[in-house]
Amino acid sequence: MPQTPHVEQHFTAGEAVRDVVIGMSDGLTVPFALAAGLSGAVAVSHVVVTAGLAEVAAGSIAMGLGGYLAARSDADHYASERRREEREIRDVPDREVAEVVELLQNYGVSAEASAPVIDALKARPSAWADFMMRFELGLEAPDPARALRSALTIAGAYIAGGLIPLLPYMILHDVGAALPWSIGMTGLALTAFGYVKGMFTGAHPLRSAVQTTVIGGLAAAAAFGIARAIG
Amino acid sequence: MPQTPHVEQHFTAGEAVRDVVIGMSDGLTVPFALAAGLSGAVAVSHVVVTAGLAEVAAGSIAMGLGGYLAARSDADHYASERRREEREIRDVPDREVAEVVELLQNYGVSAEASAPVIDALKARPSAWADFMMRFELGLEAPDPARALRSALTIAGAYIAGGLIPLLPYMILHDVGAALPWSIGMTGLALTAFGYVKGMFTGAHPLRSAVQTTVIGGLAAAAAFGIARAIG
Repeated sequence: MPQTPHVEQHFTAGEAVRDVVIGMSDGLTVPFALAAGLSGAVAVSHVVVTAGLAEVAAGSIAMGLGGYLAARSDADHYASERRREEREIRDVPDREVAEVVELLQNYGVSAEASAPVIDALKARPSAWADFMMRFELGLEAPDPARALRSALTIAGAYIAGGLIPLLPYMILHDVGAALPWSIGMTGLALTAFGYVKGMFTGAHPLRSAVQTTVIGGLAAAAAFGIARAIG
Repeated sequence: MPQTPHVEQHFTAGEAVRDVVIGMSDGLTVPFALAAGLSGAVAVSHVVVTAGLAEVAAGSIAMGLGGYLAARSDADHYASERRREEREIRDVPDREVAEVVELLQNYGVSAEASAPVIDALKARPSAWADFMMRFELGLEAPDPARALRSALTIAGAYIAGGLIPLLPYMILHDVGAALPWSIGMTGLALTAFGYVKGMFTGAHPLRSAVQTTVIGGLAAAAAFGIARAIG
């Protein structure tokens, strides 16, 4: 049996996958829980659909724009920190040298052993700034096109997820008849989503499926209890 | 005038701040938008309060548990990647040496200059694994207590934010009378929140205040339009 045990395959979830997960986790959970909660308080499915679609609109825009600004803010933060590193390297190189020495000492590398590395960095200030960004600050250069893509992916995933629990309320006029269908369809969708998410993020798919479904159920149960108590 | 121009003050938003921002951004936006949206469709504030509180319950639980699982998943991912690095260092040290050489070459450090660093890392395999985690993968060791703290912070911030737009509907029975108060109070809260958020995240506070308020307004306008169209 052929084996390739030494191929290094570090998993990093793609940013698109992460954005779909962000949007769909909330999209499948909150509109479903809101609809189930309102089912405990009102009898007309029309109100549930209105509230549900209003929530999907509000949630997708809030999360999408939130994702846009988060990505933009990451990019701004990276740019401002890099300017600061460039300035420090130009104005106080001795202090930056001391920082490199200290950083490498944390990994058991002596000051003498670091000296050739420092000479090489000194010869290329721009590479030195990149080195500090990655090694001192743990920051990576962000992709400039990410913000818009991220916003659309999150919002689209939220809408796709949010429409599933609302479909039965759109078709059936009786809330009592729609609720079990909404629970069943959303339960299936949460389980499938959790399973696929687990495959992408490296978690156990089954554990991920159970966790995702339980979160949706807990959120819905709490919303249901509150709406029934005051409804 | 005393100046300390060379003090290095890299800003990194604390995790607690980040969690409050995550929870409160959505908490101030989505329940407000939902309530405003329903105001376009129903006349009784009771329905708005019921839907709003159900949304706050569902949203806070979904986001809180989502934050919990994200933090746990980060910790699992770190642990599994670190075990892999330890294994690679033990089983294929030559490959790992080549990776360190290549990493440092990206910053203009020659293979000869890297040699003393590699000798030092070889002497301490555990530090070598830490070095690879940080430098090759850009991962930092997560705090084990973070998951629960993160969940409670996000959920609490969501609830705190979500109650503000709902208060006027709880006090005033007429939706038409409550809506302007809800808009005013939430607008003020969004602006203040955006300003403080900007101070913490290093963005321009005023720009951040405007952005945060605009997002809330856009989400609410979309929800309002949809609810009125179908309500």
